[in-house]
Amino acid sequence: MKQISGGVTAAKGFKAAGLHVGVKTSNTSKKDLALIVSDCLCTAAAVYTKNVVKAAPIYQTMGNLKNGHARAVVCNSGNANACAPQGAENALRMCRSAAAALNIDPSDVIVASTGVIGAQLKIEVIENGMAQLAAALSENGSADAEAAIMTTDLRQKEIAVSLDIGGKEIRIGAIAKGSGMIHPNMGTMLSFVTTDAAITSEMLREALLESTVKTYNRVCVDGDTSTNDMCAVLANGLAQNTPIINKNDDYKAFTAGLNFVNEYMAKCIARDGEGATKLVICRAINVKTEESAEKLSKQVIKSSLVKAAMFGNDANWGRILCAMGYSETEFEPGLVDVSFKSAAGEIMVCKQGAGLSFDEALARSILTQEEVEIIINLGEGSCEATCWGCDLTYDYVKINGDYRT
Amino acid sequence: MKQISGGVTAAKGFKAAGLHVGVKTSNTSKKDLALIVSDCLCTAAAVYTKNVVKAAPIYQTMGNLKNGHARAVVCNSGNANACAPQGAENALRMCRSAAAALNIDPSDVIVASTGVIGAQLKIEVIENGMAQLAAALSENGSADAEAAIMTTDLRQKEIAVSLDIGGKEIRIGAIAKGSGMIHPNMGTMLSFVTTDAAITSEMLREALLESTVKTYNRVCVDGDTSTNDMCAVLANGLAQNTPIINKNDDYKAFTAGLNFVNEYMAKCIARDGEGATKLVICRAINVKTEESAEKLSKQVIKSSLVKAAMFGNDANWGRILCAMGYSETEFEPGLVDVSFKSAAGEIMVCKQGAGLSFDEALARSILTQEEVEIIINLGEGSCEATCWGCDLTYDYVKINGDYRT
Repeated sequence: MKQISGGVTAAKGFKAAGLHVGVKTSNTSKKDLALIVSDCLCTAAAVYTKNVVKAAPIYQTMGNLKNGHARAVVCNSGNANACAPQGAENALRMCRSAAAALNIDPSDVIVASTGVIGAQLKIEVIENGMAQLAAALSENGSADAEAAIMTTDLRQKEIAVSLDIGGKEIRIGAIAKGSGMIHPNMGTMLSFVTTDAAITSEMLREALLESTVKTYNRVCVDGDTSTNDMCAVLANGLAQNTPIINKNDDYKAFTAGLNFVNEYMAKCIARDGEGATKLVICRAINVKTEESAEKLSKQVIKSSLVKAAMFGNDANWGRILCAMGYSETEFEPGLVDVSFKSAAGEIMVCKQGAGLSFDEALARSILTQEEVEIIINLGEGSCEATCWGCDLTYDYVKINGDYRT
Repeated sequence: MKQISGGVTAAKGFKAAGLHVGVKTSNTSKKDLALIVSDCLCTAAAVYTKNVVKAAPIYQTMGNLKNGHARAVVCNSGNANACAPQGAENALRMCRSAAAALNIDPSDVIVASTGVIGAQLKIEVIENGMAQLAAALSENGSADAEAAIMTTDLRQKEIAVSLDIGGKEIRIGAIAKGSGMIHPNMGTMLSFVTTDAAITSEMLREALLESTVKTYNRVCVDGDTSTNDMCAVLANGLAQNTPIINKNDDYKAFTAGLNFVNEYMAKCIARDGEGATKLVICRAINVKTEESAEKLSKQVIKSSLVKAAMFGNDANWGRILCAMGYSETEFEPGLVDVSFKSAAGEIMVCKQGAGLSFDEALARSILTQEEVEIIINLGEGSCEATCWGCDLTYDYVKINGDYRT
């Protein structure tokens, strides 16, 4: 498997575009409508937010994907179309508008929205801009589409990989957005994945679920699970591999590729969390079960106190043990070792549940790096899990203290 | 029932004191050791943190309270004695030291600690200061004892009430500390309650549990459940009421008094959350069950995004619906109304799950007050619950970005 350029249009037969059509009114240079389309019908699968309050486009997409097929994705930023007047109608109108511009069936369109909750979507500006957006579709359009799904994101998030399946080169590419309200509980922020692999919609769905639980579901920026989270994958089969119809070696190779893409995106989303200055990784090792390892590492990543300490480059490992302690996992505190690791080195600060006297200057230099790993060694088993998050900063408060008005 | 002065020494036969003995080294004017003592043996009960990682004094106190009796409380601030070398030994030595100074049995001492996790407790400075602390005990010592249990708290938290039980005046008083790492899961931050009521330890325990779940357990500052949370109550019987031995009317009157004290403290702790500029109250009404009402209101209070919006005086109700949506409670989003209320007025911003156009200036003036209520009307039942929290501010990040070093 190797990383290639091209993002969501790297796979054969995919085009994308992004434009400013007027959903975002404060800044007309900011793109706000994205389109991704395949030359032919794809098998498709998606995972969605588990929030009880789901945005209208989530329901529309759920319905459209019941038959396991899709051909295009349309997504706006600047308005979540959640708890908004005429939400269902406007989500449907977005599908119809995209379908008309592409001359495809409206039920083959995946629709998504991200932005402010509760305000009515300006569907007319979307409809008015659709023809121009469709005309802009290009095999080099990934970066534009990516720009058009960003809200408070600072960094673009795209990736593509190439791998061999049964002698054929297949490609998987993706764009994603993250930033705030990030604590996916199964679904994710927005992530659109395309591939030219030939795979049934059932196997595609299995692969997506398998990967999501170990990637997007292990990211936490602020503990808030959004109303609009969605990760959708489209597979158009143009790589002409022998179609994947069961969990054979080809399926495993494809899932490994998908997982690489999704893990990369998960880390991008954590690193670019609202206000974040660094990526914080928590690896729980030597745990009795993988489920416990995930709970422990996720709770550490989620703790406001741990996050603030990471911002302050403070080796405050007591907060890490404290967070582990309320993760609803049974473990023996007296066996826990805690270490910090980064490009500047590695240091153990707690051994078997009690503090070590350690070199504070070295600890600080390790924590000052842009990517910091917290390793919690439970000393009880052989399972492990890694979760990704970021620090809690003044800028998180600033961004969210006055986002809407 | 009426509110009276005197705090934790308001009830007959209780004295208290607080001194700087040297646990806090950075500022010698800050008190760091508190003592509360009754003239006679008390029935006693306590609730503790549910964190798997419990501080040494928690285990010591659990053991001491097995017989349902106690006579004194000793508590230091500046060091949590959690995950610390010689933790159990030092917690025991604190009990023995207090007992020797008071000439009582060490097993009748409730011991508690609060402060940094992981550092060894300087037990010698505590032992060396104990005689002076015991000599300072006074019926006016509540404020000193309160000062000695504070860490990053800015406001003192004490209260006392007087009520009539079977023709006798009984009093209940308390001191508490809160501030950070506040998301009690049953126990609480530290709260010490004294009363001169005559009540069996069984009934005292029942009353405490009944009250805790509706008061301290409905506070959330940052979602971090501490390793040291404890709420202990001592009842010395000096009010000479007919002893409460079952859940009769006297029990109900006593529990109402205890509940008043605990609810007052819960609100104090929320209002004085680290970095907070305001008390945020979330009332969930017309809910199917009280359990759901509590889950919904607690999740709203806990959401970093809602908290940041409260700091910014931003009527961003979409985040409130979003938080309700991931509270693991089933409800119909299309029935939810959301209002904000404070001394400046009341405004509905969401009706039946969709946004209302509302007066932004009025909303902002309501949210700018020091005490703001978020009312979520589920429109599905007749139960309700209220939770208390605070806003998320730059100062929370500042305080916690570099607390330890």
